[in-house]
Amino acid sequence: MSEMFVGIDLGGTNIKIGLFDSALELIRKTSVSTQADMGPDVVIGKMAETVERLLVDADLPLADVAAVGIGTPGPANYSEGVIIKSTNMPTFKNVPICQMLNEKLGKPIVFDNDANVACWGEYAVGAGKGVKDMVFFTLGTGIGGGIISNGELVHGCAENAAELGHMIIYPDGRKCNCGQRGCVEAYASADSTARRATEAIEAGAESSLKKLLDEKGRITSKDIYEHLASGDKLAKEIADGTAKALAITCINMLHTTEPKRIVFAGGMIAAGDVLLNRIQDYFDEQIWTLKKEPVEICFATLGEDAGIIGAAALARHTKGPGR
Amino acid sequence: MSEMFVGIDLGGTNIKIGLFDSALELIRKTSVSTQADMGPDVVIGKMAETVERLLVDADLPLADVAAVGIGTPGPANYSEGVIIKSTNMPTFKNVPICQMLNEKLGKPIVFDNDANVACWGEYAVGAGKGVKDMVFFTLGTGIGGGIISNGELVHGCAENAAELGHMIIYPDGRKCNCGQRGCVEAYASADSTARRATEAIEAGAESSLKKLLDEKGRITSKDIYEHLASGDKLAKEIADGTAKALAITCINMLHTTEPKRIVFAGGMIAAGDVLLNRIQDYFDEQIWTLKKEPVEICFATLGEDAGIIGAAALARHTKGPGR
Repeated sequence: MSEMFVGIDLGGTNIKIGLFDSALELIRKTSVSTQADMGPDVVIGKMAETVERLLVDADLPLADVAAVGIGTPGPANYSEGVIIKSTNMPTFKNVPICQMLNEKLGKPIVFDNDANVACWGEYAVGAGKGVKDMVFFTLGTGIGGGIISNGELVHGCAENAAELGHMIIYPDGRKCNCGQRGCVEAYASADSTARRATEAIEAGAESSLKKLLDEKGRITSKDIYEHLASGDKLAKEIADGTAKALAITCINMLHTTEPKRIVFAGGMIAAGDVLLNRIQDYFDEQIWTLKKEPVEICFATLGEDAGIIGAAALARHTKGPGR
Repeated sequence: MSEMFVGIDLGGTNIKIGLFDSALELIRKTSVSTQADMGPDVVIGKMAETVERLLVDADLPLADVAAVGIGTPGPANYSEGVIIKSTNMPTFKNVPICQMLNEKLGKPIVFDNDANVACWGEYAVGAGKGVKDMVFFTLGTGIGGGIISNGELVHGCAENAAELGHMIIYPDGRKCNCGQRGCVEAYASADSTARRATEAIEAGAESSLKKLLDEKGRITSKDIYEHLASGDKLAKEIADGTAKALAITCINMLHTTEPKRIVFAGGMIAAGDVLLNRIQDYFDEQIWTLKKEPVEICFATLGEDAGIIGAAALARHTKGPGR
């Protein structure tokens, strides 16, 4: 057996762990509840035990694991391996997670934020395969991002690069949760897309979504794309606004780090071609005429396993012998 | 004598050449007219002869030159050392400038666009010294840019990264020369700043600039900052618009590659503190409240020699033995 890599996706609810071979093919995976209220010692102990059990179940020796990768939301000091604090795991304060897990498993530990890890997964074996310059967006409650430039993640001066949801595209525009106005996140995240529709209906816009809002008390971005499919005019307007905001952001990234490929991930890509094609349309309409741009805009392909694949891939890239 | 580096700033009117020691201290510099109409062979021959004469005048041997750097406007295939075409030098079409100069001087040649070269100069020995992540803007006729991430220039997938003047900050806004709408260049370059004032006066705005426009037929950004100093209200409005557009772009770069320092260069920085302080004010006003950002916004320090210093610095970085 050649060397193996472990990828860990540490969330507030579950810890997902995957065991991968040197080609990043999944050997075995599992998921356990985080139980963050038990504190960092217990949680990290459980991570180590789960890795060991996964190896026993696969009948493979710990000795063959070359490195372990972890992805988790920040804020953290990633290069030093310390979780500073965590919204979803309030007991985690200044936790040297890499050192603690290394003491239990005796393996090199690689650590990065969840968006960077998912970005790296897509880059290594998913939608970004084969390019050296990529930009990654996750469209969920908020908008997260990742940037790969010349084959490396861009971390920035204080490890907070690629907060792409907070690029301002409409100065003095909609208020964002971050305190700024006009962020792309305030227009095009799944939550903001739903919120814009809700506000329009509350302001009197006609829409088949109104009945749904009255009945359920809320609407989601999924509802909007469903009503768009059945011809609702407001749903189309709102979805167009989302696509245009994302297209402008793609253009801005093209003029910044010039990716060859821009990859969208997150819950909202379930909307499918109606979202992707509209982003492409607006991109083609708004982009400069100086030259034809070679950038490809596409959806992520790794789905829910992006976190564990990405963490294992980053471990291979950073600590693997063949890097 | 330790090793030396040559920096060449190839423009449509003049070729500036500087000879630098290994610490990038200027030993001697000169400038000759380009005479691009004589064709690439003659121009590149003249570049080589001028380098040789500079060495003779300084009583230093060609053997001690470790590498030569060249900066010039594109479009070019920089990594292959080929000028594809040039607005200012129409006789230059698909010219393998690196190979041609290497044949004459027998030295490694490093080649990049003028904005990247100036950016690298500021990074190596100017306003960007001491940081690893920097963003650079030139405020002239247009707005050029450069990005340094983790100590390296960001080139992008087709060597057109950092076209920062063409980030869209006002979708569907002012038309830019590039064909897009709402680019920061369409608001905040020296030319656009002057144009916005001209348009406002032509539309009937009251201003002490009106008399100047009537007399000279045009106004410049320099005029605007002069009239701002003497209390003109329109000049203040226009200058505020410029500063705000640049501040928004700084925020967007912070959320992209997260520079530690943002450096402004180009003719318009002659406006001084009134420009810089206003950019900082808008930045502080518009930036998120999540955390205090450590970015420093400042002006370039190398002035007109940035091109030759940057080219020599890039030669040292890329081909120098101590890199």
